[in-house]
Amino acid sequence: MPRLKLTLEYEGTRYVGWQVQPNGRALQAVLEESLGRLLGEQVSVRSAGRTDSGVHATGQVICFDTERALPLKAYVQGLNSLLPEDVAVVSAVEAPEGFDPRRWSRGKRYRYRVNNRRTRSPLLRTTHWEVFAPLDVEAMRRASAHLLGRHDYSAFRASDCQAKHAVREVRRLSVEGEPGGAISFVVEGTAFLKHMVRNLVGTLVEVGKGRRSEAWVAEVLASRNRKNAGPTAPPQGLVLEEVFYADGPPPRSAGGEADADEDEG
Amino acid sequence: MPRLKLTLEYEGTRYVGWQVQPNGRALQAVLEESLGRLLGEQVSVRSAGRTDSGVHATGQVICFDTERALPLKAYVQGLNSLLPEDVAVVSAVEAPEGFDPRRWSRGKRYRYRVNNRRTRSPLLRTTHWEVFAPLDVEAMRRASAHLLGRHDYSAFRASDCQAKHAVREVRRLSVEGEPGGAISFVVEGTAFLKHMVRNLVGTLVEVGKGRRSEAWVAEVLASRNRKNAGPTAPPQGLVLEEVFYADGPPPRSAGGEADADEDEG
Repeated sequence: MPRLKLTLEYEGTRYVGWQVQPNGRALQAVLEESLGRLLGEQVSVRSAGRTDSGVHATGQVICFDTERALPLKAYVQGLNSLLPEDVAVVSAVEAPEGFDPRRWSRGKRYRYRVNNRRTRSPLLRTTHWEVFAPLDVEAMRRASAHLLGRHDYSAFRASDCQAKHAVREVRRLSVEGEPGGAISFVVEGTAFLKHMVRNLVGTLVEVGKGRRSEAWVAEVLASRNRKNAGPTAPPQGLVLEEVFYADGPPPRSAGGEADADEDEG
Repeated sequence: MPRLKLTLEYEGTRYVGWQVQPNGRALQAVLEESLGRLLGEQVSVRSAGRTDSGVHATGQVICFDTERALPLKAYVQGLNSLLPEDVAVVSAVEAPEGFDPRRWSRGKRYRYRVNNRRTRSPLLRTTHWEVFAPLDVEAMRRASAHLLGRHDYSAFRASDCQAKHAVREVRRLSVEGEPGGAISFVVEGTAFLKHMVRNLVGTLVEVGKGRRSEAWVAEVLASRNRKNAGPTAPPQGLVLEEVFYADGPPPRSAGGEADADEDEG
């Protein structure tokens, strides 16, 4: 049975998140309903990761199996005519044998945006965290170096995170000032713990405000204690930009599969 | 009586535009209501220009008179706590004697954004015009040179435009490709006719699609006939970014005041 791999963009504002929950609309349910209408059969989809309510994606990856042999562009154009305006299919390809968007993932890139102007911004309100206190971009950039590499990130995991262990590898953590007073954090890694990106950003913002030193960030990481880190940055600043794949699943020894058991950025 | 000058940012999506209309919420009414609550008196505001339904602003300028002597920051922080989330005050200053945001304007800068990816974008849908056909940015940039300068822009005015004459000066018209497949048109001029920016963009996009030549743009301008220009680009791509002022009103001979009688971009 053919397996399809779709890349999705969505605005997470009015959803309870990727995963089905009792209290509102979930992105997974929206996808499965539209696919069901397109294909005339019940479809269940799997995603590369769950995203929380308010979190966006430009490169979420999902897969599903279907007996129907529609041309690939039907999954783009057909689904885009059925999906609500805040969800879209960016591309569709046939997936390799055994493909699993979560287990095959070799890494992910997230972007987190902060609006650092002195007043709130109507045009940035659903895509940026508004931080009115002036942030020192250079200090945050220097502090971010302490968070790179392979470490136990227990200090940056949500208290209800279900992952079996907290060792992850952060390959990239860049901090860029943008025109108009916005700041972009780009975080790339093998896999992420629940709220890990938002906790990393919330911690760096403490340094940017001058409340904490750059060395404090290293102490927080070494402590492995969530209570020492900064507050969780709010969801609307976060975008899942890309999920990376190779030709097959990562070798078990590389830790990719084991890492991926909880992954909400 | 003190006159205050406020700079506003708003997302125009859910408004009928700046001006009060029978069929929905107007930005002018939202401002006057919030100011009325802040000041405890009825206030009428004047703006640098009307914006249409769906058109945004990061630099709309308004003024009003009040007997109350509130500190300037009360107009920023106080109003921002009363205004809905899609409208905000960016700054407040005391206006010079006789200031009028429309008559004193020396010019305006608008930005128009196009999403030129091959699929619709949930995250850009309220701020970009989605054009799926690939656009030739260089061809549009060359064509835009024909639209610069002081001309009769009758070919680019809305059929119901009420301006007394159509001579305007376009000082800048830049076309920039951006990362992620977006294209930004920046248009700066003394004043604008109704739908003028959107008609300029709609015309350049015809060239970008390869349907029309660069020389055709010059012919459209010279014809002074709206029927020859391209379609009006939709409102959601347009942002009023800045209104320029000097220490007083422009001299009448410069045409600034006479030009400004109809100005909706």
